[in-house]
Amino acid sequence: MIQNNELKRYQKKYDYSYTFGNFPTFELLKCKSECAEKILYHSLLKDDILEKLTAECSRRHIELLHSDRIVEKIRDKESCILVGVFRKYEQQLVHNTNHVVLVNPSDSGNLGTILRTCTGFGIHDIAVIEPAVDLFAPKVIRASMGSIFHARVRYYESFDIYYKEFGSERMLYPFMLKGARQLGQLNINRESPFSLIFGNEASGLDDSFLQIGSSVLIQHSNEIDSLNLSMAVGIALFEFTKDAFKMR
Amino acid sequence: MIQNNELKRYQKKYDYSYTFGNFPTFELLKCKSECAEKILYHSLLKDDILEKLTAECSRRHIELLHSDRIVEKIRDKESCILVGVFRKYEQQLVHNTNHVVLVNPSDSGNLGTILRTCTGFGIHDIAVIEPAVDLFAPKVIRASMGSIFHARVRYYESFDIYYKEFGSERMLYPFMLKGARQLGQLNINRESPFSLIFGNEASGLDDSFLQIGSSVLIQHSNEIDSLNLSMAVGIALFEFTKDAFKMR
Repeated sequence: MIQNNELKRYQKKYDYSYTFGNFPTFELLKCKSECAEKILYHSLLKDDILEKLTAECSRRHIELLHSDRIVEKIRDKESCILVGVFRKYEQQLVHNTNHVVLVNPSDSGNLGTILRTCTGFGIHDIAVIEPAVDLFAPKVIRASMGSIFHARVRYYESFDIYYKEFGSERMLYPFMLKGARQLGQLNINRESPFSLIFGNEASGLDDSFLQIGSSVLIQHSNEIDSLNLSMAVGIALFEFTKDAFKMR
Repeated sequence: MIQNNELKRYQKKYDYSYTFGNFPTFELLKCKSECAEKILYHSLLKDDILEKLTAECSRRHIELLHSDRIVEKIRDKESCILVGVFRKYEQQLVHNTNHVVLVNPSDSGNLGTILRTCTGFGIHDIAVIEPAVDLFAPKVIRASMGSIFHARVRYYESFDIYYKEFGSERMLYPFMLKGARQLGQLNINRESPFSLIFGNEASGLDDSFLQIGSSVLIQHSNEIDSLNLSMAVGIALFEFTKDAFKMR
């Protein structure tokens, strides 16, 4: 149990992190309540939110604490009046599902947006190849709008380790400016699961990925250097999953 | 001419703004040099960049000034060592081209990312319906990676005013959670230009837009409330322009 006087501004080395704001905190309670340690709120929290929160915490036996002092001490933005404290956790990716693989992502806002978009398109397994931004940084959690708690995310020391575990069972699609085929012109193999692979924001994937699976290019005008990373992931996911989301 | 001692941290009411960082500043020189007032650099700027900059400024008769003091005073991030100063300008949208229409966008990062993505997919005409975030806020310019200088952006007091000018000449596609047709299942009319219309980050488009043109839904799972606004725009643009970007 984390003591209240131990709670400090987030650092990567801690074994716990925070959800800042209503939406991510309720997602924590809904999806990962077993990791929630306590919920802290500020006097400015509205009564109807507090009522809902009290019911959720009581049902799950999670401590709910009113402390302006601690909230003000640990929050990242002055507007934040609700904080969840949770233990970090590790997860396994599932075989035979579709994956997104992020090689060396370095921007926490991008990682969070990608988690949100993956959740939106039904992808729950995300591999992250190190070095990479800290998954549990509050900025990631905020940008994910709490979708982080819907996802299974696992960090790997190298792409090879990921490849050894999952490479043979699936179609691999590295997204690169040198990609051999254009997104939108692909014949997507629907028989086996896929992994969509994306490189770092600044450097992309190196040429070794041209040898892996079926490389893909998202064609754009030469007036920009490249699409934003999370944008590229979102466009690719839309194209790869649109048949699954056909109007029912 | 703006005097050096007048330069202050950006405010919306000023009739000039700044590009912070190398990429947007070079885009300013390349695409909108007629609005550039002067370029300021810090001692930390690398020699090869300075050399390129000196040539560009000299060719275009734009003042290039070395001042750590002014750069440190006006920049938004400590890492910024190159600043462009430019006069704000107004533009007209072009008839018979494709448009993106943003109704009440409120996040400057989103607006910048949307400008970058529009440029990437060959859309240069963007209508913004007020109230809306300030186009020339340095955060918009930064997120656009300088693409703002490739775009024609015009603000309108209401959607009606935009509609009166452009509504009859084109197909209108409002993107809404209640949209009648699903993106990816549309028969896109290629005979006339299109306007893709998107609402505010939090509230989307109101129901009155169901009566306008052909409303579109980007289907996603119910595990998220909605896609990020810039993500929705990017996915829509990819789908509407992919035939134009077929591999040559």
